[in-house]
Amino acid sequence: METQTFQGTVDRYDGVTINSQEEPCESNIIKKKLSDSLAKWAEEKKRCIWFKVDIKDAAWVPILADEGFNFHHARDNFVMMFKWLPTHRAPNLPPACHTNLGVGGLVLNDKNQMLVVVEKHTEVSHWKLPGGYVERGEDIKDAAMREVKEETGIDTIFKSLVTFRHAHKRMFGNSDIYVVVLLEATSDDINKSDIEIKDCKWMDVQEYLNHSEVFGFNRFIVQQALDLQKRKLEFNLTTHTAQHGKMSLEYTAFTVGDL
Amino acid sequence: METQTFQGTVDRYDGVTINSQEEPCESNIIKKKLSDSLAKWAEEKKRCIWFKVDIKDAAWVPILADEGFNFHHARDNFVMMFKWLPTHRAPNLPPACHTNLGVGGLVLNDKNQMLVVVEKHTEVSHWKLPGGYVERGEDIKDAAMREVKEETGIDTIFKSLVTFRHAHKRMFGNSDIYVVVLLEATSDDINKSDIEIKDCKWMDVQEYLNHSEVFGFNRFIVQQALDLQKRKLEFNLTTHTAQHGKMSLEYTAFTVGDL
Repeated sequence: METQTFQGTVDRYDGVTINSQEEPCESNIIKKKLSDSLAKWAEEKKRCIWFKVDIKDAAWVPILADEGFNFHHARDNFVMMFKWLPTHRAPNLPPACHTNLGVGGLVLNDKNQMLVVVEKHTEVSHWKLPGGYVERGEDIKDAAMREVKEETGIDTIFKSLVTFRHAHKRMFGNSDIYVVVLLEATSDDINKSDIEIKDCKWMDVQEYLNHSEVFGFNRFIVQQALDLQKRKLEFNLTTHTAQHGKMSLEYTAFTVGDL
Repeated sequence: METQTFQGTVDRYDGVTINSQEEPCESNIIKKKLSDSLAKWAEEKKRCIWFKVDIKDAAWVPILADEGFNFHHARDNFVMMFKWLPTHRAPNLPPACHTNLGVGGLVLNDKNQMLVVVEKHTEVSHWKLPGGYVERGEDIKDAAMREVKEETGIDTIFKSLVTFRHAHKRMFGNSDIYVVVLLEATSDDINKSDIEIKDCKWMDVQEYLNHSEVFGFNRFIVQQALDLQKRKLEFNLTTHTAQHGKMSLEYTAFTVGDL
């Protein structure tokens, strides 16, 4: 019988990635096919071997683990497992994502009021900014406007970035970056989310700065926004397209502008 | 025989998390124990059930998948699997991290030169800033100074944040945020990393701005830094401690200061 091996795709670091959904394998031959493949890859001096295992192929996971594979990252319907082959050099692999990205919206109306909410499921009741997690592939501005709309029903336009906070050991032991943007309300009537929000209202900015049920960091956010106004600065998030060789990269970049 | 069920820990969202290493289970009874546990949790109106499965317990993965669990995230030696129990409401779960965090150092010396590198394993040879991925739990400033030291041997001190870039569909299909900080060199002799760096040198800032082997975004970074100098601004990353109820949160925040 001919030796069967996994094909996969080779990357520029001499790594190989196998996708379980693209190379289906009968469960009775997978052990043999895997060990034959590993022998071949070692001979070819391949470096990192990656298996993207779909949840439908979960039976592959313990077999890969037995051969020395470990978990790298997971999402949606797959887990990525890896094995580093070179014996003379320590693994030099990119880390799995360890940073959650959240946004908050400092929403102002034309009466010098800001939009504040109290969340459900909170341990300590306090008035905070509407906001939440950025979705995969979403831009920061869009995420902030979407979260404000979902939680409070208020429509907004983007004015400026205000500040961001970087903290560690947060949800699931990951770090998080929380970006706060200044938004201008273009509607007035609150229509709050019953799922996420216990209370929502417009509050005078000065009242918020002196309110006892406001955390220090939230006061800091408002002070930063007032400081920017005083300095007549705004922080834009502008979209650019860069040519990197043959690849075109679209990105949003932080720039400083004048109010 | 008494029914055995997993205990786990209950969170404030009425979820339950089971750690495979804290509740070992013989492989011959795990199927029964899992289905008995799920029946009990459904009766108790629990919401999301999380299993943190260590790589040593990889045999649990296909059993959990058979019961309708899916992958949420993975790192180090574990994969987190989840099953949402409520039938009358769609899952309302935090996303897995989908953002890589990278840093670049714009390192200036007292001769108006900047530190530039050419990476190994690059498709298009070009002069870029030293930098790399932020490690789990690491602060942005520290990561930038560490990467500069590892890649070039140069010691630095932090001066200012310059800009950041947010892009999508990058490594492993994740987004990334690349933060650039201005660093002042406190040493002069380059001692480059043989593993990651093909070439490294000090280059006049004006030469860099006009160099053909420099990508547009890197030129943009230098222009942003010059713009900050002209505006006499610096962007600090300052450390704070906030009290959130009983919890104390340490974080780094972006603030604007005068040069």
